[in-house]
Amino acid sequence: MRRDQLLELLRGVAAGDISPDAAHERVARLPYLDLGVARLDLDRELRSGLPEVVFAQGKSDDELVRIVEAMVADAGRVLVTRAEPAAAEALSAAIPDGCFEPRARVWSAGRFGPPSGRRVAVLSAGTSDFPVAEEAAACTEWLGHEVERIRDVGVAGIQRALDSIDSLRRADVAVVVAGMDGALPTVVAGLVPCPVVAVPTSVGYGASFEGLAPLLTMLTACAPGIAVVNIDNGFGAAALAHRILSTSIASP
Amino acid sequence: MRRDQLLELLRGVAAGDISPDAAHERVARLPYLDLGVARLDLDRELRSGLPEVVFAQGKSDDELVRIVEAMVADAGRVLVTRAEPAAAEALSAAIPDGCFEPRARVWSAGRFGPPSGRRVAVLSAGTSDFPVAEEAAACTEWLGHEVERIRDVGVAGIQRALDSIDSLRRADVAVVVAGMDGALPTVVAGLVPCPVVAVPTSVGYGASFEGLAPLLTMLTACAPGIAVVNIDNGFGAAALAHRILSTSIASP
Amino acid sequence: MRRDQLLELLRGVAAGDISPDAAHERVARLPYLDLGVARLDLDRELRSGLPEVVFAQGKSDDELVRIVEAMVADAGRVLVTRAEPAAAEALSAAIPDGCFEPRARVWSAGRFGPPSGRRVAVLSAGTSDFPVAEEAAACTEWLGHEVERIRDVGVAGIQRALDSIDSLRRADVAVVVAGMDGALPTVVAGLVPCPVVAVPTSVGYGASFEGLAPLLTMLTACAPGIAVVNIDNGFGAAALAHRILSTSIASP
Amino acid sequence: MRRDQLLELLRGVAAGDISPDAAHERVARLPYLDLGVARLDLDRELRSGLPEVVFAQGKSDDELVRIVEAMVADAGRVLVTRAEPAAAEALSAAIPDGCFEPRARVWSAGRFGPPSGRRVAVLSAGTSDFPVAEEAAACTEWLGHEVERIRDVGVAGIQRALDSIDSLRRADVAVVVAGMDGALPTVVAGLVPCPVVAVPTSVGYGASFEGLAPLLTMLTACAPGIAVVNIDNGFGAAALAHRILSTSIASP
Amino acid sequence: MRRDQLLELLRGVAAGDISPDAAHERVARLPYLDLGVARLDLDRELRSGLPEVVFAQGKSDDELVRIVEAMVADAGRVLVTRAEPAAAEALSAAIPDGCFEPRARVWSAGRFGPPSGRRVAVLSAGTSDFPVAEEAAACTEWLGHEVERIRDVGVAGIQRALDSIDSLRRADVAVVVAGMDGALPTVVAGLVPCPVVAVPTSVGYGASFEGLAPLLTMLTACAPGIAVVNIDNGFGAAALAHRILSTSIASP
Amino acid sequence: MRRDQLLELLRGVAAGDISPDAAHERVARLPYLDLGVARLDLDRELRSGLPEVVFAQGKSDDELVRIVEAMVADAGRVLVTRAEPAAAEALSAAIPDGCFEPRARVWSAGRFGPPSGRRVAVLSAGTSDFPVAEEAAACTEWLGHEVERIRDVGVAGIQRALDSIDSLRRADVAVVVAGMDGALPTVVAGLVPCPVVAVPTSVGYGASFEGLAPLLTMLTACAPGIAVVNIDNGFGAAALAHRILSTSIASP
Amino acid sequence: MRRDQLLELLRGVAAGDISPDAAHERVARLPYLDLGVARLDLDRELRSGLPEVVFAQGKSDDELVRIVEAMVADAGRVLVTRAEPAAAEALSAAIPDGCFEPRARVWSAGRFGPPSGRRVAVLSAGTSDFPVAEEAAACTEWLGHEVERIRDVGVAGIQRALDSIDSLRRADVAVVVAGMDGALPTVVAGLVPCPVVAVPTSVGYGASFEGLAPLLTMLTACAPGIAVVNIDNGFGAAALAHRILSTSIASP
Amino acid sequence: MRRDQLLELLRGVAAGDISPDAAHERVARLPYLDLGVARLDLDRELRSGLPEVVFAQGKSDDELVRIVEAMVADAGRVLVTRAEPAAAEALSAAIPDGCFEPRARVWSAGRFGPPSGRRVAVLSAGTSDFPVAEEAAACTEWLGHEVERIRDVGVAGIQRALDSIDSLRRADVAVVVAGMDGALPTVVAGLVPCPVVAVPTSVGYGASFEGLAPLLTMLTACAPGIAVVNIDNGFGAAALAHRILSTSIASP
Repeated sequence: MRRDQLLELLRGVAAGDISPDAAHERVARLPYLDLGVARLDLDRELRSGLPEVVFAQGKSDDELVRIVEAMVADAGRVLVTRAEPAAAEALSAAIPDGCFEPRARVWSAGRFGPPSGRRVAVLSAGTSDFPVAEEAAACTEWLGHEVERIRDVGVAGIQRALDSIDSLRRADVAVVVAGMDGALPTVVAGLVPCPVVAVPTSVGYGASFEGLAPLLTMLTACAPGIAVVNIDNGFGAAALAHRILSTSIASP
Repeated sequence: MRRDQLLELLRGVAAGDISPDAAHERVARLPYLDLGVARLDLDRELRSGLPEVVFAQGKSDDELVRIVEAMVADAGRVLVTRAEPAAAEALSAAIPDGCFEPRARVWSAGRFGPPSGRRVAVLSAGTSDFPVAEEAAACTEWLGHEVERIRDVGVAGIQRALDSIDSLRRADVAVVVAGMDGALPTVVAGLVPCPVVAVPTSVGYGASFEGLAPLLTMLTACAPGIAVVNIDNGFGAAALAHRILSTSIASP
Repeated sequence: MRRDQLLELLRGVAAGDISPDAAHERVARLPYLDLGVARLDLDRELRSGLPEVVFAQGKSDDELVRIVEAMVADAGRVLVTRAEPAAAEALSAAIPDGCFEPRARVWSAGRFGPPSGRRVAVLSAGTSDFPVAEEAAACTEWLGHEVERIRDVGVAGIQRALDSIDSLRRADVAVVVAGMDGALPTVVAGLVPCPVVAVPTSVGYGASFEGLAPLLTMLTACAPGIAVVNIDNGFGAAALAHRILSTSIASP
Repeated sequence: MRRDQLLELLRGVAAGDISPDAAHERVARLPYLDLGVARLDLDRELRSGLPEVVFAQGKSDDELVRIVEAMVADAGRVLVTRAEPAAAEALSAAIPDGCFEPRARVWSAGRFGPPSGRRVAVLSAGTSDFPVAEEAAACTEWLGHEVERIRDVGVAGIQRALDSIDSLRRADVAVVVAGMDGALPTVVAGLVPCPVVAVPTSVGYGASFEGLAPLLTMLTACAPGIAVVNIDNGFGAAALAHRILSTSIASP
Repeated sequence: MRRDQLLELLRGVAAGDISPDAAHERVARLPYLDLGVARLDLDRELRSGLPEVVFAQGKSDDELVRIVEAMVADAGRVLVTRAEPAAAEALSAAIPDGCFEPRARVWSAGRFGPPSGRRVAVLSAGTSDFPVAEEAAACTEWLGHEVERIRDVGVAGIQRALDSIDSLRRADVAVVVAGMDGALPTVVAGLVPCPVVAVPTSVGYGASFEGLAPLLTMLTACAPGIAVVNIDNGFGAAALAHRILSTSIASP
Repeated sequence: MRRDQLLELLRGVAAGDISPDAAHERVARLPYLDLGVARLDLDRELRSGLPEVVFAQGKSDDELVRIVEAMVADAGRVLVTRAEPAAAEALSAAIPDGCFEPRARVWSAGRFGPPSGRRVAVLSAGTSDFPVAEEAAACTEWLGHEVERIRDVGVAGIQRALDSIDSLRRADVAVVVAGMDGALPTVVAGLVPCPVVAVPTSVGYGASFEGLAPLLTMLTACAPGIAVVNIDNGFGAAALAHRILSTSIASP
Repeated sequence: MRRDQLLELLRGVAAGDISPDAAHERVARLPYLDLGVARLDLDRELRSGLPEVVFAQGKSDDELVRIVEAMVADAGRVLVTRAEPAAAEALSAAIPDGCFEPRARVWSAGRFGPPSGRRVAVLSAGTSDFPVAEEAAACTEWLGHEVERIRDVGVAGIQRALDSIDSLRRADVAVVVAGMDGALPTVVAGLVPCPVVAVPTSVGYGASFEGLAPLLTMLTACAPGIAVVNIDNGFGAAALAHRILSTSIASP
Repeated sequence: MRRDQLLELLRGVAAGDISPDAAHERVARLPYLDLGVARLDLDRELRSGLPEVVFAQGKSDDELVRIVEAMVADAGRVLVTRAEPAAAEALSAAIPDGCFEPRARVWSAGRFGPPSGRRVAVLSAGTSDFPVAEEAAACTEWLGHEVERIRDVGVAGIQRALDSIDSLRRADVAVVVAGMDGALPTVVAGLVPCPVVAVPTSVGYGASFEGLAPLLTMLTACAPGIAVVNIDNGFGAAALAHRILSTSIASP
């Protein structure tokens, strides 16, 4: 039940068109039933400030196209993550004005909003962390923010990070993507005052244990104020950056 | 080498008081040697926007008092976390105008800055999560932000969370502290658009495995945009909230 | 807002005592605000068929007494789990008609409902599993069901289980508590048709790893239809047994 | 030795046709030897109320067909889980009146029993949890119960669960299938009084660790009375639901 | 039902004293009910060749004394493991002819059988593995076998193991107790042809993770034919050695 | 240096053909250098009673054929484990009188020794445990012992195990192969007095975690005297059975 | 800024060609900005004594060729690890004087330096550890050291290790590569005084858990003075050996 | 058998005093028996360049004093690690010229050798890593090397590490002790060419999991050439440093 529908119902009760008992029947199923809305994704956006995003992996091309078409029809825009080339081709065939970034595995149509004028630095520690960093970057751009990509910044050559200090200092949020030892976010958080979103990646080998090693490193980082998201979750980092930037925009 | 010292050195070279080789000798050890500064903590604050904070656990009362006195002498303020009552007593004996919050295990003197006018909601899922939530709250307040405490909000009784929706919606950042299944941040992030900082706690039993269960839940949360910090790390959550609020204050 | 309060409101609208807009104001905050109720525990009972239960561990005696007194005042009955002798003594001093079962660590006052006439068999594999089994048994009895205790039934002496087959076959639900290898639920589920609730315990040593070994055994049990609950969670087993028995009682 | 065979033997002894010693020879091997029966699966059904079910994975098509033909010949019905399309084709070629549900990977012939008139709600949190949910649903239907499928109910959009509250409340058992953070069963168990069977799935990524994250979440769920089964074990959930419904049917 | 009881019953049937139906009634409950015997421990011994042994840990002194007295009354002998000094004192007060070996934490009365004339070598890698090795040795002796103790045999000084080669070669079974890297069983199994029973211990530190490291080492040992038992399970090693020696004694 | 070579050397010294210093030169490199022998595998056999066995996995067909030919030339017999069909074909092409057992993945030529007249029971819990059980059986037979295969003995239908009790009781060693919950060895060890060698398998799914679940179950088994070997290690079980049988044969 | 560039700048200041302020502008960005150099890898070499090495895995052939060409152009030499045959072919097509060692998966051009005259023993425990050992050996040779390969040295046949004692004693560093139980480094470290670099491998099966078992064994090794590197990290072992040899060469 | 004893034996054979068979009897037990030496610890030193060291933990004061007295009597020196104050007092009472360093928990008498003139830098990341760092430092000094202590060098304030670059560059080996995220060794190994010995500590909290987090970080460190030792193993780091320095001293 939308709020206008509720008001109409109550007016019906006041007008005697609907009995209190009948109205009770409809309202009493609250808080559960009246939450039902036809356009769930719009609701999510209203509540959480983020649109529903399509996770392509595990969906057939057919299912994917149908879902994406529905969302474009509804909102004029969509973001699809973890899209393999074949899936992207199917999407682009159906929705010609979409675009695909293969390294990021992101397919999108339209944009979420007008440019925010805010800037997110996306750092990646090694070349193998690049796809996750690109997912973070592409999603951040789709959400309306500017991205500064800073690549190949390893802790073993700490100068490369220090070298980018000016770029880093201009950023409102730093997203730091790193596998293996995952030490880069600690270093970055020691250098800049902005929020640091750390993304562990699973691309290492040996005692990386599918990303467990960088995950634990980031959680136990000695520099306070690091936000950790799930392993390989570039989109999650973008979503968190968006929340951070939205809260500050919304404030007086 | 501070920047004013460097300028003075270069002027000496220009004036012929110092030979290029002697100056080279001093500067060339950069970037390593010239970083040497007497007041490291001030530097950290300049760089990362956060003061150095004292972790009391594992320090003797004596060590603690000496460190804290030095920091108060330097900056007029200090924040001490994980302070047991005996340590707090020793600190208060030495620095009479400090104050101790026993549930939060936080001892502090002064404040980090003027009130920011920003608001952080601190939610805790169960009564046993309370000490960690209080640490987050006390540290956030010391950093200059207003705190709205929302306690005992379990997912099994999801209405309690929904019930606080108005408080939640007024917050710029939500810190959500939860042990056992750690599902509360997911629910909160689905309801509000602000950044959600999730703190797993180790207080559960059985398959909680010292906080591993809520940690994994929070990392794999279905609601995008959740920032996870280390298990039981209330101060880390406050530091992250502070970074988030600072970045937005600093923006035009 | 309770349902009777809602009906009264709607009648006020119909009667013209309350304007549609004022009523809308109150109802529209649904589903969030109107969920607010003074008596949360009653709500939980309405929704989930289970009363709120007090977990004593980690609460001070004072806190415990205050919570329990409030719940007894409200509902005339209460169940407290993980109560150490000192806590039980404090509770019994405040509420004289409570009773304490030390092996089960359960303190209770009153009963949840009239006897259901249903029967729950509680099996324990070793003497060290006894406290968890007793917690399950005491909670089940408080919830209104009959309990048949079958103790010291190890798989290594499988006859002991077989020997109790008649008792087992009379049960509506079998709760099976086992540490170490946790093989007993598999055997029981192969012998009887009723639902088997398996409770792993942490009391083993060596490669039991705080209950992980029996937990995994129970989850991978070869006999289908075993319900696993958390390690050492005797109350959880009782709550599940209660749900199972309630669903069947409630059916036509 | 079947019970009728035993009675016949004893009558032979009474009639003097068999000497006590010869009878002793045959009976004394009990409880071990006399358990030998030609039709093992019927025995299992008698004991546990559940027929033996064929797990197709790891069996050659040939083996599978031979086993299934034997079971159909014996009982006129069979349930095969984890059947890939090729295996299903081989089965359908041999037993034409079988039917295959590809999403559920379930092949079956006949039904286990007459309709029970009981209802099981099968909820799935995400589209990738769908195959496991379908396995649970198909097996439940084969066992004779009605299934209400409630799909795509994420905790991040908690309204979708609330929205289905009426369907949920009509169910005798709720099977909840969820990967990633596995928080849905907690929410459901807080809303309805019926037993909740939680099935973690391995389909997540990152810190899901092949289903470990939702498994731990479900085990440590704050709502009491949740039954957890093995990761991806849709059939196990159906078997447990069947045991629950059978116990209540069987009761006076 | 013991076998003599069964024969008596059948003779009653033959004599007409018991009707076939009444006999059926009693026998038909087999294999389940008729297994019921008053003297369970005797049965276990008959079946598995090992008497029931008392695990003292977690039992009150009172419980312990009662159990042990009953077993001594029945069989004239008993073995108690994991007995702390206080428990041993209580036992010795009640049963004066028992004896206690404090390092092994073993209290015993009588012996299981006559000397077997077989020999078990018990090797321990470090001094901290000594208590577990002593438990293995004391239990082996109680079971009737000769024990050769070979202490402080580290792999880092492999000569110490080689040095004992003559003792080792005289043994029928080698029990090897080792913590930390757990490499000793591999070396021993490469030197002698007898069965090697490997016991990991939890006494290490760091990456030993409560015995996990030596456990994995022993399981993956490059020398084939190593039998691994549970961490710290000295009695289990003795029981396995006893089974090994019994099978060979029993053979023609 | 073989023992006969050593004796010859000493005789040379006694005869004055070799000076003490020259002999010292050759012997003094002991224990290190003089251990060097051309025929390492014969040595292993002398020491450990087990021949060197070829693990085919990870070796090219070429390498495999060369190694196996050398071993057959030396000893007239060889055992190859983990042989895929292609490798077996290559071996059989080179050594025509070898034979291959595809389910066991074992290729062999000749036999290790004359029949021992001892009997090993090999039990498998499920059909998917069959390949590991066959490896154990084939290796045991090659080592000279009789094998009694007992298949498809699940704990959920405990009668199947009981049913085979006579076969079991005739065995000198029982090898029990089980995945998933791994409970079968516990049951078997409770029924028979002979040594039980437990082999966990990795074939399960869900919370089996590649064999971790049955491994932990077997290690923590309530029945004492179970020997655990590595996951899927059928050959290791056979080698252990051989050691057990050899020790008893060798004894007076 | 390279050091020569800095000296030039200072001379410009002394000569009056550059004002102190302009020079300050350039230098003051230190320690961060001035670290920026065009030839990063040379810097790493200066600092850490090791050149940047290319990890081929996860890079496209194209990317790989471009990176390697740049490095050869710069330094006249390069080392590429984890190169599959196709990648090696692409590299050799572009840079004809490179060479590829397929077992080691190492492609290289040139050498890092003149022969050091130092010797590294590379031991491998099993044939499946061979590729990792070859990577260690090939990288060590490229770094300028002599390698003594000692293969197939299992702990179960400890003589093979002892047999190589003379070779081992001539080595300055021993690199020991072992999977499964990982016990070889312990034995080697007990025999020789040189540093032992232990490399666990993931090639085992069962409870090796992708190299976790040998990793833990090596970390908890009873012989002190063992250096552990990451699982399968042959290059890491070579780099550590190089550091060890360099420190000793550099000392007076 | 010592080498001089062997020569004497051979001379006896040459002289006819000992028959070849009697000599064979004595020598043939080689390589095993003749390794037997009275003074095992001297042997270890000869072989591995390191004396046997006493690990006090888990030993009674009595045992400790007896062992230490024997070692001092034999060699005039001893090193005892993990000594608690009470144990140290007992040792000092018995051996007055010993000395105790309480923070390092190290008690020692004498020195291992003359000063080597080599220098080991011991860095610790946090104050809680101090005891482990002190153990490493005290043991290194006892072994004859100079120690440069560099304390409180966190990665979050990377300048503190950079600041010590001159000290670091003078060291022959760097021992880096760090808990929590364990990132310091990576940074150090990127700055200096000497071998870096990384020691993870267990002193962290939360997702440090008793040192697992820094251990994994160090193993997966992006800077090549880091040697990892066991968690909290300060002595192990000293032993490795000693091996490294010895190999270089021993080289021509």
